[in-house]
Amino acid sequence: MKVIHTADWHIGRILNGRALIQDQTYILHKFVEHMKEIEPDLIVITGDLYDTSFPSKSAIKLLEDTIKQLNISLQIPIIIISGNHDGKERLSYGASWFEQSQLYIRTEIEDLYNPIKIRDVNFYTLPFATLAEFQNYYKDVEINSNHEAMRHALKDIETSLNSSEKNVLLSHLTVSGGIKTDSERDLTIGTIESVDEDVFKMFDTVLLGHLHHPFSINSDFMYYSGSLLQYSFSEASQSKGFREVTIKQNQDISSKFIPMVPLRELEVIEADYQDVINENVKVKNKENYFHFKLSNMARIEDPIYHIKQIYPNTLALTNDTVYSQHQVAKRNLKQLDSNTIIQQFYEDVMDDELDKLQEQKVRQLVEALDEEERSR
Amino acid sequence: MKVIHTADWHIGRILNGRALIQDQTYILHKFVEHMKEIEPDLIVITGDLYDTSFPSKSAIKLLEDTIKQLNISLQIPIIIISGNHDGKERLSYGASWFEQSQLYIRTEIEDLYNPIKIRDVNFYTLPFATLAEFQNYYKDVEINSNHEAMRHALKDIETSLNSSEKNVLLSHLTVSGGIKTDSERDLTIGTIESVDEDVFKMFDTVLLGHLHHPFSINSDFMYYSGSLLQYSFSEASQSKGFREVTIKQNQDISSKFIPMVPLRELEVIEADYQDVINENVKVKNKENYFHFKLSNMARIEDPIYHIKQIYPNTLALTNDTVYSQHQVAKRNLKQLDSNTIIQQFYEDVMDDELDKLQEQKVRQLVEALDEEERSR
Repeated sequence: MKVIHTADWHIGRILNGRALIQDQTYILHKFVEHMKEIEPDLIVITGDLYDTSFPSKSAIKLLEDTIKQLNISLQIPIIIISGNHDGKERLSYGASWFEQSQLYIRTEIEDLYNPIKIRDVNFYTLPFATLAEFQNYYKDVEINSNHEAMRHALKDIETSLNSSEKNVLLSHLTVSGGIKTDSERDLTIGTIESVDEDVFKMFDTVLLGHLHHPFSINSDFMYYSGSLLQYSFSEASQSKGFREVTIKQNQDISSKFIPMVPLRELEVIEADYQDVINENVKVKNKENYFHFKLSNMARIEDPIYHIKQIYPNTLALTNDTVYSQHQVAKRNLKQLDSNTIIQQFYEDVMDDELDKLQEQKVRQLVEALDEEERSR
Repeated sequence: MKVIHTADWHIGRILNGRALIQDQTYILHKFVEHMKEIEPDLIVITGDLYDTSFPSKSAIKLLEDTIKQLNISLQIPIIIISGNHDGKERLSYGASWFEQSQLYIRTEIEDLYNPIKIRDVNFYTLPFATLAEFQNYYKDVEINSNHEAMRHALKDIETSLNSSEKNVLLSHLTVSGGIKTDSERDLTIGTIESVDEDVFKMFDTVLLGHLHHPFSINSDFMYYSGSLLQYSFSEASQSKGFREVTIKQNQDISSKFIPMVPLRELEVIEADYQDVINENVKVKNKENYFHFKLSNMARIEDPIYHIKQIYPNTLALTNDTVYSQHQVAKRNLKQLDSNTIIQQFYEDVMDDELDKLQEQKVRQLVEALDEEERSR
């Protein structure tokens, strides 16, 4: 049985003010093309299909069109669970009709106890739930963390599951030790959100959503598909795609990552401003989404304007000089007197020294402050 | 063939600050019970299922639950068209899956040319469209009114339809001469919105939404089902329900109105404040939604508080004295001097005369103003 594992589409995502819907339309079209070729027996989408619980019309349309092609045109069964970004009601609307064509949308904890059987494999679903939702559902038990919630939720499954068949769990959570990026929203506030791997050991495989890196964890039975696209500059060098999972009776389950090439990648460029403007820096593609961290930019008027003439999809520009030199300055800050600190700061920011008059003003100001300090 | 015709559910409607979702849940439950008994071959819902294009979660859930019971549990085919209150994308989401169980949701003009055949009857659908949408769809033709739009849209149908079969049009519009209430939102701004009956004469019957009165028009082939509930105090005495349409080959089509009793009706009570408080007025049900138009209320502090102690679902309270006596006063306003007008106004509002000091103050003020006027 060939199962395609994907997650974290985040349809409707806006990155630094830029709507990524065109990129998402492009990559989902590619995904559909891959599915035509692979002809999987099942697609599982483990949460965060939308980026917000109030998706835009265009986001709703893109998801509907994509799922329609996969499920109605290509007749591929699909199991979807909700993630922490999805609105349950929004996602599950129409689910009773969808199930008639083997499109299963699961958004509730209770669905865990009603696995979906496809080709003799049991697919258990545990969509994202808040700690409060777990506490409310398992009223009689004390639950203080995601780990405790999962352990309790899966306890009954452990005794009931048929271990002579293959059993797969689909969920949306953080496994302890998983590598995070800047684009996952925290699952809990003020409590440890991650769940230990041993809680899941009754399953033959666990297919996960939430972490955006396709190799977030090092496990021989738990996998993240990773997100559909790079969704923060901290993911700039990460491959994105989907996973092909092969499930055979009496054989170990294997999961293979299949990368997809996006319309635009995210690139972080650390360089000198003039080198960027003169195109003396190596970029993968000028149409990519850029975060430029540049030095020697202080005297340039409206640098982003000039940069966008060459790299139209620049999404972020920061002054690298200030940042890196500050780091150096910080180290011996305690050994310097106030005048020197101010002088160095000015130099960092302005790429220039204080002139005589400025230096004099600073000195007077510092002396006055020192005087005031002493007289208290 | 038995067809149930309903429209204008306006799920999520709020009347004078009061959410009607409980009343709507009650009546839709009743509607489902009726359907269990009638066992129709088809239900048509001719627009305005929701009250707004951004319905609340509870509104979405109520619609989904109702349609699920009718279409999935009772297995009744359903045709739905969008009205001017519905968001097309919202309503048609999932339509490709729904059609597999004979739930047809039509929101586009182009669907008109693709009738749905059920038991040898052709159901043509023309959902609500704005004048701009008509103009955009029929680019090559000049269209300046809803009437012209409909005439043009239906011209091609006239030549193509098979008149040896029964042909039914479902639409959401105002027919010329139709009785309006206060709760339909105008379809067009600044242009005549109504369409003449003769435009539709190629159809055996036309089942309509938009006007809330179930007997809005006097026609032998066109019918409004009316709204699900009374949605404005102008509908206070109107019966609400649905229609049962009987279609038989070689027979005229008949439409019969079937009323439903709501959880609460709307009542308008014109009376004296004391009579209302002393329960000397006849009301149908104290739990109904009331608009009280009362006289002799001017000296009562917080009258709505006292009224709600007896009639908890009072939604509106207006001072009838002021209103009616003002009408009288207006007539001879020009023949009165300023002092008398002010005196009468005070009496109207306060149910009392100006005292000596007040009268003196008014006189002084009027004289001062007259003086100022003269000196200009």
